[in-house]
Amino acid sequence: MREIYHNDLDSVVNELVVMSDSIQIAVRDATRALLEADLQLAERVISGDTRVDAMHDQLEQRTFTILARQSPVAGELRTLVAVIQMVAALGRMGDLAAHIAKIARLRFPDHAIPEPLTENFRRMSRLAQDMVGNVGRILAERNLEEAKHLAEQDEEMDDLRSQQFRVILGSDWQHGVETAVDVALLGRYYERIADHAVSMGRRIIYVITGDLPEGENWPTT
Amino acid sequence: MREIYHNDLDSVVNELVVMSDSIQIAVRDATRALLEADLQLAERVISGDTRVDAMHDQLEQRTFTILARQSPVAGELRTLVAVIQMVAALGRMGDLAAHIAKIARLRFPDHAIPEPLTENFRRMSRLAQDMVGNVGRILAERNLEEAKHLAEQDEEMDDLRSQQFRVILGSDWQHGVETAVDVALLGRYYERIADHAVSMGRRIIYVITGDLPEGENWPTT
Repeated sequence: MREIYHNDLDSVVNELVVMSDSIQIAVRDATRALLEADLQLAERVISGDTRVDAMHDQLEQRTFTILARQSPVAGELRTLVAVIQMVAALGRMGDLAAHIAKIARLRFPDHAIPEPLTENFRRMSRLAQDMVGNVGRILAERNLEEAKHLAEQDEEMDDLRSQQFRVILGSDWQHGVETAVDVALLGRYYERIADHAVSMGRRIIYVITGDLPEGENWPTT
Repeated sequence: MREIYHNDLDSVVNELVVMSDSIQIAVRDATRALLEADLQLAERVISGDTRVDAMHDQLEQRTFTILARQSPVAGELRTLVAVIQMVAALGRMGDLAAHIAKIARLRFPDHAIPEPLTENFRRMSRLAQDMVGNVGRILAERNLEEAKHLAEQDEEMDDLRSQQFRVILGSDWQHGVETAVDVALLGRYYERIADHAVSMGRRIIYVITGDLPEGENWPTT
């Protein structure tokens, strides 16, 4: 019985790794659709979000079933509650990737992002992909150092967002109100993806140590 | 033992009602600070978010303790997992109210919102306050009808947001890029508060019926 239980527990953590890989790909494809004005790819990300939602439902239900049948305590209970919260965060990141793709679709055949900001968005996207793609594995490996590293990566994301504001609010901005609004909202979506990864990192720290990271507020999704 | 347990369960649900009342007040005050360019009130909302975070941590910890000690099943397990998720959503709504207040503070002594849009934001705020303020009580009363009604209110929120876009992207917009960007981000914050309330409504439907609302995706925070 206990062995089946531990297999179940490992299996939901493994599914979480698979889900985090899928979100990484969604962020990559949404960004490519955005920067290359690729309508087909945008549509693929948008329709793919249904699959992400299905993974979310299934994984949450499985975790709930383990909670109901096995009545776990201590570290195992912490892990299962963390999985439920992390699954919600990954689902939300998937929605945000779809939001990015929807702006790409809305502006097609134009490019939503003007040339002076494409490199900035490319960097935001790489950072977000890196954070999302790692977070499942960080839980599976109980890697405390890498869990803490996610908060450092988030600072870089904040810097990139500040740069965007300087560009769109600068006196030499030539691309109009609509593009500025697109940039502000898109920047917000990438920033939120990174925030969710940081929250997940804090959850992992709690799972490993039983304590919240010092001086940090409890993460909210 | 079972009686203490049921008292504990009622008590976390009551705390959730208290927390939802606090968020309602935060949204009300943040909006007043925004529309009246009231710096002191903006500061109060921003510093008050620490208290909301503390309520979040405490309530989550108490729910976790009940899970660990009482090994609930069925409807009670659904309730406790829903409480953990709803507490996260309320914490997030508190962050969003603080974001609104931060824009009020950033633009002080100017008004962030120009006159043609104040009534729109007033309506968004009233709607958000209504949804947030009700959602705790809807869980406490297991009120299926009102839980479903939250999704209808959300449609009105979406309409208000569409109106905002028509104004800021209209050819007669006179208030510049910065104000348009503020409006777009502020509108997003109110919309997200409403989205969280809808997610909480779906959680409540699940707690009451054991089923997800038909045709709906599982809510993600």
